Amino acid sequence: MPQIDADRLLADLRHLRSIGTQGTGVVRPAFSAEDMTARRWLAERYEEAGLEANIDGVGNVLGRARKDGPALLIGSHSDTQPTGGWLDGALGVIYGLEVARALAEDPATADYAVDAISWQDEESRFFGCLGSRSFCGLMTPDMEAGLTDKDGVALADALKEAGLDGVDRMHIEAGRYAGFLEAHIEQGPTLEDEGLKIGVVTSIVGLRGTVFTFTGQQNHAGTTMMARRKDAATALYALANAINEEFPKVAGERSVWTMGRAVISPGASSIVPGHAELELQYRDRSTDVLDAFDAVVARLVDEINGRGGATVQMRQSRVQIAPAHMDEDLQGYLRQAAETHAAGKWLAMPSGALHDAGIVCERLPCAMLFIPSIGGISHDFAEDSHDEDIVLGCQVLTDAAAAILAAARNA
Amino acid sequence: MPQIDADRLLADLRHLRSIGTQGTGVVRPAFSAEDMTARRWLAERYEEAGLEANIDGVGNVLGRARKDGPALLIGSHSDTQPTGGWLDGALGVIYGLEVARALAEDPATADYAVDAISWQDEESRFFGCLGSRSFCGLMTPDMEAGLTDKDGVALADALKEAGLDGVDRMHIEAGRYAGFLEAHIEQGPTLEDEGLKIGVVTSIVGLRGTVFTFTGQQNHAGTTMMARRKDAATALYALANAINEEFPKVAGERSVWTMGRAVISPGASSIVPGHAELELQYRDRSTDVLDAFDAVVARLVDEINGRGGATVQMRQSRVQIAPAHMDEDLQGYLRQAAETHAAGKWLAMPSGALHDAGIVCERLPCAMLFIPSIGGISHDFAEDSHDEDIVLGCQVLTDAAAAILAAARNA
Repeated sequence: MPQIDADRLLADLRHLRSIGTQGTGVVRPAFSAEDMTARRWLAERYEEAGLEANIDGVGNVLGRARKDGPALLIGSHSDTQPTGGWLDGALGVIYGLEVARALAEDPATADYAVDAISWQDEESRFFGCLGSRSFCGLMTPDMEAGLTDKDGVALADALKEAGLDGVDRMHIEAGRYAGFLEAHIEQGPTLEDEGLKIGVVTSIVGLRGTVFTFTGQQNHAGTTMMARRKDAATALYALANAINEEFPKVAGERSVWTMGRAVISPGASSIVPGHAELELQYRDRSTDVLDAFDAVVARLVDEINGRGGATVQMRQSRVQIAPAHMDEDLQGYLRQAAETHAAGKWLAMPSGALHDAGIVCERLPCAMLFIPSIGGISHDFAEDSHDEDIVLGCQVLTDAAAAILAAARNA
Repeated sequence: MPQIDADRLLADLRHLRSIGTQGTGVVRPAFSAEDMTARRWLAERYEEAGLEANIDGVGNVLGRARKDGPALLIGSHSDTQPTGGWLDGALGVIYGLEVARALAEDPATADYAVDAISWQDEESRFFGCLGSRSFCGLMTPDMEAGLTDKDGVALADALKEAGLDGVDRMHIEAGRYAGFLEAHIEQGPTLEDEGLKIGVVTSIVGLRGTVFTFTGQQNHAGTTMMARRKDAATALYALANAINEEFPKVAGERSVWTMGRAVISPGASSIVPGHAELELQYRDRSTDVLDAFDAVVARLVDEINGRGGATVQMRQSRVQIAPAHMDEDLQGYLRQAAETHAAGKWLAMPSGALHDAGIVCERLPCAMLFIPSIGGISHDFAEDSHDEDIVLGCQVLTDAAAAILAAARNA
């Protein structure tokens, strides 16, 4: 089986970390100067590895093997959260590069085609998984037209600024791929807690989001008697707390829900707020559970609107994602490689986080591999993994890729 | 009795409105260019009225009668909320000027001393009632040292920018004053709802504020299972909702409480928030009721901290104000004048809003007069009152001032 070069793998990961580095973290949001620097650096590494590198009109970087298929597409994303960790996305991107190199260096697999990729804007500066959606033909000009980031910057302007204006988009090459493999840090504590080294992803949870808009009446906090108030914040606190009390009654074992964004307007201690907004996000691998949450939300909204205070309206968040199931065959190859290198120390597990593989699986068979996150921490400067886990994960992915391609070439 | 000049009164109010005007509202926060322009214009009007005008080192504008006491100090504040109405403060300031003019023009009262004043920063850009506190000797350099506005501008820099650096502060002149009178729009709907024209204020409510800081653990909203979370927002929603459910059980008839400021950090829908802040403000004219609210808050905070999720700490807000009682004698003169000009159409009532009179009453006997607010609206561009109510209120105040000074001169 082809062998990875652990030092080269870690050196490339550390170099990528240096682009946009801040303390122990990385600030490299999609289309920022740092992000584009990282993408150009990556394109050079792809070329160095013998791949044909291109950056497309949405920022995806593809390193295409100069070989016929069947090929495997392997990678992840190199953009980060506004204040992100160094491995989220970057790990899977450098794994893709290293798998391509390792297979090319082994005479037994030198003819195998591995295309490495870094998707753009997985972290949703403009739209979650924008790059993989575009590559899969799942973004329309209409969907992109009004997109802005949280500071109001338009996607079109960010593309121009990044020098991508008018550059062609790349799309999935029909008939070329046996599948897409993505490796990622777990971003949760399960592997670490159970002393395991590898996670083989079975499914990626579905996600729904709801934005609640509360409309009350802005007024003076001293002179407006309680009975006369239509306080938007009061309605928000009541709905949010009721959701936290009612959701557990219908939740699945691994259901999660979060109300991490709430804005009270005008937001002054002396003013009864006339407007508020709350965003609820909920995830589960079962559509039935997600439907049950929807029913609870509808009931609670009716209840708040029956109270005679501020009223609440709801709309779906921009991104709604159905649960995605990883390909059984590809999972089998990952399990086998995991058992070879970490016997008894791997786990078949769902992914609570979203990934580009959840998009690409609408077009290609997909599989995902996790390595442990120290303390389960991610989306934070403190995000980290042990070097030996990073190296092990890449070797497991390499074994699996070689086995998948061997089988595909014989099919 | 001296007669006011209604046209002059309304013309001056409208001129003041034109300084910092935006739509139907006024943007004239303390120490802004517009605020200082208004203060210089006011000083000119004071001089025109025969008063000796000075702007002191904190921006207070005093128009001192060139006459011996006993004097009445009459006025309010000419600074506004960040997006304020045209009458909040301005009404009482121009009333002070008009009362001084009306008494000076009537031979029977021409010798009476009325000092007109506009206090600075009643609206709390840096510190609520900063000007009247300074005038009353209730601000120390220590208290002023660290003051900044919500954009981080230091008071010292704002004073420099306004040209007040090194200018002397004025202080209450010992032995001169029979009292302080302040007229104001009601900022609530009571007078309008009951078809009344004048409110005679009995007391100004006390105000307490508490800032709650929630500390949890920031994490990924997909991969962090509910049982492991320490979600700062969840604790905030629970505490805020519990306060809204428990306060009514100990509240007085006119108690009010507001949680108009809540900030969730980092405030993204995909991130379990690690930090949050909530501000609670509560008002009542009874110290016992305020104490009862404090006890409820302490109990609920303990409850939240016992849940094992995010924890909450509390501290007092910067401004804590004890209930203030208006002087009985001065109230009597206002009631009598109100009965003369609006028989049966006035009301003795508490003030739910704070006013400079609540500060000045620590040094001088104070009384306040309210006129109706259309729709009860204030702190909003839509704030307004009917011309005939504005004129009537000023005549009532003038009558009362003349009667108070007549009595004081005979004492």
